Amino acid sequence: MANSIWKKYPQLGEQLDLTTEYIHQAVNINNLEITGMIRDLTSGGKMLRPAFFLLFSDFGKKKLPTKDLIPLAASLEVLHVATLIHDDVIDDSPMRRSQPTIHTKYGRRNAIYAGDYLFTLYFELISRNLHSNVDILRNALSMKKILVGELDQMLINFNVKATTEMYLTEISGKTAELFSLSAAMGAIVSDGDQNLIDRCKGIGHDIGMAFQIIDDVLDFSNSGQIGKPAHEDLKNGVYSLPYILGLEAGNEQLIEVLSKDKLTSEDDKKATNIVVDNGYLNQAKEIAHSYTNRAVSEIEKLPKSHNQKVLKALVKNLIDRIK
Amino acid sequence: MANSIWKKYPQLGEQLDLTTEYIHQAVNINNLEITGMIRDLTSGGKMLRPAFFLLFSDFGKKKLPTKDLIPLAASLEVLHVATLIHDDVIDDSPMRRSQPTIHTKYGRRNAIYAGDYLFTLYFELISRNLHSNVDILRNALSMKKILVGELDQMLINFNVKATTEMYLTEISGKTAELFSLSAAMGAIVSDGDQNLIDRCKGIGHDIGMAFQIIDDVLDFSNSGQIGKPAHEDLKNGVYSLPYILGLEAGNEQLIEVLSKDKLTSEDDKKATNIVVDNGYLNQAKEIAHSYTNRAVSEIEKLPKSHNQKVLKALVKNLIDRIK
Repeated sequence: MANSIWKKYPQLGEQLDLTTEYIHQAVNINNLEITGMIRDLTSGGKMLRPAFFLLFSDFGKKKLPTKDLIPLAASLEVLHVATLIHDDVIDDSPMRRSQPTIHTKYGRRNAIYAGDYLFTLYFELISRNLHSNVDILRNALSMKKILVGELDQMLINFNVKATTEMYLTEISGKTAELFSLSAAMGAIVSDGDQNLIDRCKGIGHDIGMAFQIIDDVLDFSNSGQIGKPAHEDLKNGVYSLPYILGLEAGNEQLIEVLSKDKLTSEDDKKATNIVVDNGYLNQAKEIAHSYTNRAVSEIEKLPKSHNQKVLKALVKNLIDRIK
Repeated sequence: MANSIWKKYPQLGEQLDLTTEYIHQAVNINNLEITGMIRDLTSGGKMLRPAFFLLFSDFGKKKLPTKDLIPLAASLEVLHVATLIHDDVIDDSPMRRSQPTIHTKYGRRNAIYAGDYLFTLYFELISRNLHSNVDILRNALSMKKILVGELDQMLINFNVKATTEMYLTEISGKTAELFSLSAAMGAIVSDGDQNLIDRCKGIGHDIGMAFQIIDDVLDFSNSGQIGKPAHEDLKNGVYSLPYILGLEAGNEQLIEVLSKDKLTSEDDKKATNIVVDNGYLNQAKEIAHSYTNRAVSEIEKLPKSHNQKVLKALVKNLIDRIK
């Protein structure tokens, strides 16, 4: 069953259930253990990316029937889960969605190949639709930017001279790209003109940027609730926006703490306090707000419809999490 | 410059040089360190897969100019290098082609993402050619079998009841598939009929099977020369064909050694001796021979040409390594 956040939108919830089913049928390997884990990973999540794709498929000239939308909706979730599996190997995260991660249960080897398998499945699902639209494939390839974003992050990691601009560029690839792609694909399959496609792409991008920054901010306040240890990233030299704002402001205390070779829990706490007390956390919230504001004002310009209202409500829910 | 194995075939060597150049231009990320490492990895190798693709592109009705062949040749090497990078992370191999591996130098994170990036680049290079032939994309997706093969391997690892059949199925996905794909793509771009495509696919498959078994056999004799420690795989529970033949024959000594929880160097040596003394190594050689024999007899049935002769010579060279 679709995640409870979709309760208010039963039609969308139903489409997302079909998407999950479609993925489960598409995942087809002899190895039943790994099949089971992939199916679990593609069941419990919020499925935001397919949801945005489905919502944005409402604004062009053509209304595709659900059955034609599902393979593409599925492909976006498959791509997302591929990146999650690899991210979990990289961060050595023990849990994901309240379940042990694949590498924890069946080793790094199977987790890496399972991710690779899903990358390929992504392209397969995309290409099932190819007869109708080669533009979709061209856009699908923009997922490359996600990986370029991840590789460019090396330039920020453990870099106390990282700037907000560097950070925004990096999350633009790492997170916003897939939201942007989901929205753009919706516009493309509904036969939207270039104007509409660009607008949807922009909205998706802004939602993705806000989403990542909000995630960074939530990491400070309720890390216990979202199932990963606090500030794991910090110890790995991955600085989230609140820290970067402090570093960029030239906060000497913060620079001193983060310049240490190995961070203790004490250092972690100290850095957190500096970031909160000096208002860097609030600054990050404001930046998130500026993205959701722009997204909402662009959503206003979309054709008036039920889906337009749903999109607005979703963006508001998103930003309300850090009120 | 192309690897010295191509000295005897200057035209092919030239095309492979162009392929390398093409890859270097296609790899385009801000992160210069990773760019450099990817370029190194796509320079020194034998480039067997692009070579087979180029050779097989000679047998259909249409002769494409080199410039149209290069992107596809490049895509096959890019895919191969993507799998190498991930394999090195999985095996924690310190060196590849006499250079430190990416994960050794820049961490697991960057190595995993670099592999993912190359998987995407593979699809991008494939799709640059799409206007001419959608069949190519459909075939390109058969790379999924490579990953299914890797995931199925879990069923063999640490399994002293593994059979030759299980092993052959597994390497059929893991290694032979990419050779088969390379050959098939050659036949497809040269506008070969289905008969020719199937024949080329079969030849590629047999060459790939032989290639993997020969690699297994060489692991016994001259492991020092090919740059990896002896029988690393054995300790990870990955049994190569000579061991599996022994296990399947019910050799109790071998079953006893391999059933131990942790293998010492002493156990490794003991297992090796059992395999050599009981003729399992020779049996593996014979199986490799049967694949190259079939490949050669199928190559005979291809249109008579220079490339046909080159292919025969290459297959003979391959099997001569374990004479």
